[in-house]
Amino acid sequence: MTVKIGLLGLGTVGTGTVEILQEPQGRSPLLKAIEIKAVGVRSLDKPRQVNLPPEVLTTDLETIVTDPDIAIVVELMGGLEPARSLILQAIAHKKHIVTANKAVIARYGPEIYEAANQHGVYVLLEAAVGGGIPIIKPLKQSLGGNRIESIVGILNGTTNYILSRMTSEGADFDEVLTAAQQLGYAEADPSADVDGLDAADKIAILASLGFGGRVKREDVACEGIRSVSAVDIAYADRLGFVIKLLAIADGNAGENSEALQLRVHPTLIAKAHPLASVNGVYNGVLVTGDPLGQVMFYGRGAGAGPTASAVVSDVINIVGIITSSDENPALDPLLSCTHQHYCQVSSIEDLVTRFYCRFLCADVPGVIGHLGMGFGNHGVSLESLVQIGFTDGCAEIVVVTHDVREGDYRAALEEISQLEAVKEIPSVIRVLS
Amino acid sequence: MTVKIGLLGLGTVGTGTVEILQEPQGRSPLLKAIEIKAVGVRSLDKPRQVNLPPEVLTTDLETIVTDPDIAIVVELMGGLEPARSLILQAIAHKKHIVTANKAVIARYGPEIYEAANQHGVYVLLEAAVGGGIPIIKPLKQSLGGNRIESIVGILNGTTNYILSRMTSEGADFDEVLTAAQQLGYAEADPSADVDGLDAADKIAILASLGFGGRVKREDVACEGIRSVSAVDIAYADRLGFVIKLLAIADGNAGENSEALQLRVHPTLIAKAHPLASVNGVYNGVLVTGDPLGQVMFYGRGAGAGPTASAVVSDVINIVGIITSSDENPALDPLLSCTHQHYCQVSSIEDLVTRFYCRFLCADVPGVIGHLGMGFGNHGVSLESLVQIGFTDGCAEIVVVTHDVREGDYRAALEEISQLEAVKEIPSVIRVLS
Repeated sequence: MTVKIGLLGLGTVGTGTVEILQEPQGRSPLLKAIEIKAVGVRSLDKPRQVNLPPEVLTTDLETIVTDPDIAIVVELMGGLEPARSLILQAIAHKKHIVTANKAVIARYGPEIYEAANQHGVYVLLEAAVGGGIPIIKPLKQSLGGNRIESIVGILNGTTNYILSRMTSEGADFDEVLTAAQQLGYAEADPSADVDGLDAADKIAILASLGFGGRVKREDVACEGIRSVSAVDIAYADRLGFVIKLLAIADGNAGENSEALQLRVHPTLIAKAHPLASVNGVYNGVLVTGDPLGQVMFYGRGAGAGPTASAVVSDVINIVGIITSSDENPALDPLLSCTHQHYCQVSSIEDLVTRFYCRFLCADVPGVIGHLGMGFGNHGVSLESLVQIGFTDGCAEIVVVTHDVREGDYRAALEEISQLEAVKEIPSVIRVLS
Repeated sequence: MTVKIGLLGLGTVGTGTVEILQEPQGRSPLLKAIEIKAVGVRSLDKPRQVNLPPEVLTTDLETIVTDPDIAIVVELMGGLEPARSLILQAIAHKKHIVTANKAVIARYGPEIYEAANQHGVYVLLEAAVGGGIPIIKPLKQSLGGNRIESIVGILNGTTNYILSRMTSEGADFDEVLTAAQQLGYAEADPSADVDGLDAADKIAILASLGFGGRVKREDVACEGIRSVSAVDIAYADRLGFVIKLLAIADGNAGENSEALQLRVHPTLIAKAHPLASVNGVYNGVLVTGDPLGQVMFYGRGAGAGPTASAVVSDVINIVGIITSSDENPALDPLLSCTHQHYCQVSSIEDLVTRFYCRFLCADVPGVIGHLGMGFGNHGVSLESLVQIGFTDGCAEIVVVTHDVREGDYRAALEEISQLEAVKEIPSVIRVLS
């Protein structure tokens, strides 16, 4: 069975999505059941990075959301309108929706979900928060046994990049913003990012999932990072803190313990806090629940590849449900396991890795040369070979290699262990390449 | 509709699971559809932390796995037998399985999954890897658009705790192991943990999911941490590394690029690597995929609460599917959204938080006293008040508060800003409590 989908938008994320769908090898077998029937674009003449048959592209987006052949509409246009209207129209035509549009969901979520429930379709939005980081589905499906106590996230990559550079370079906001704009990490009009609006959209969505109720976007108190100065970052550092733009949904913070606190603002966080080391364009989300304790999700929060990964995962989830209810109503292929073949596994001898090794050697002339020659005989290239101390009258020598085949390295060690000057090889530990 | 479940085992995780199921308030609404019909235990007389009707407890585990009323069997006994046989018997009686048993799944996964597919039931195992960290479902459901390139994890909390303490204290393995055993972080017979066997079970499971094929447990090359010494940790530190017990499934590492590399061993990793700061009993799993890039999952990898959280999430997933296919075959409640009410959100005025604030003041006697009094008038308790420098002839004073109601703090600032000596308040930034 083939499931036909329609895309609205072929920008960065749309292109990334098409690229995944066109190269299913090595990915979920469900990808092979998906056919791109139509892609809605603004201009038919624009050169594209992906090859699509000309009849797939159309500027008439209404034909996509009303096409009876199309089962899933993937909305990747962004912005409020016409995205909202097209989503509602698609739902009215019984299409499942996959969207990366946090602004529409944060503002019109209740309207959209009501329509979806009425028409019996899904609206999935993994890509709307945290790019490729799985966070929406884990909140819905994996943490349901918990009382969620708080969700604290670095949810906007642009501001995190700016704050990270301000911290590492001691530079001020304006200076780093200009650099970020030149690198394409910030928009020409950066307000949605630097004023915290994008992060506020996202925490509104996460709060609704985590705390099991609708959230009004305007209930999120919101301050951006324009007023954060290099001076404050430096003082924060002296006090043991870093400054991050945090988006926070807290069930325990207010005086009124029944109510949620929803807010986005620059925040001093202790350097040992798990979110303190989320730097650059990375996002991190820390969820605290009872009895779970803390879990953190970390990864690239934006970009074509990560966001397309999340879009496609939602499409696959729906395709799994559609196709399974056809053939085997009892088993969702995404939850069951049907691997028939065994993975081919290579021997540890064939591993290519770096090694750390410590030798205890007699303190005689030429021992370092002998070690070096022993490794060289087996093609083992060394990064460093250092006599690092003395223990019990022996010279202690630490050797770190470049990437090397483990079998060759073991053969070299075997030869070296025969050297008279080598008394002991107490440690051989691999180094992550 | 009520779904009846049976538990095999009422140890730490079993008790945590019952505690969640008995207190559904604030958790997934699906919990209310679950009834604990039977709990299999070794002794009826042992005192229990949870209240269960006496008729629920039984020492006859076979009655549970064959009970026609029971839809889901939750296996929390651990060990290979009789766990394996009971799971297979339950499957033959068309029960869905939820298990935390990595040893059984890593060794008998193919046999168990074949039986499950034959009888049309699920076998879910979120709790088997990473405790409460959602990793199984994300690998199955959220990353399917990717070609997984590698999975690198700190998957055993006991060894990570031991290595972390060896690192922070400069202590040797035996010494820390004894302390860990006294604290209950290591078993009397620690071999499954310290020899890497538990981590090897887990990476075999993750590899099978990530790389889409069965994995033979014996294909995982495995070294434990008994030979890691304080000396090597110290040298690694000087070279810019920490030592962690990593479990690795790598699709790109070997000379034979078709084959997987599967291994567990102590590993030097650069201090800037995301896994380097996963310390103590925490687990972390770093998944690299194309086009995803890197995502990391982090949290407590063991313990009653986190593991029970994962067990219950699996139970909820199955209950969601069972109950939805009864009433509304098109919509799985776990993927759709049916919130009707709005979350009550409190005002930012009611937020209780710490504040950092920077003042520029005339350098006149008594200014610090005036500031302190201004805060005191509004019940704002200070942690520190430091003149930190001079800027443009003004004294630069940084004040950090204890937890305070934001409304009170703003009122204090308003009063303070009227003081003649206070020239400017350039920064007010909240501190994560």
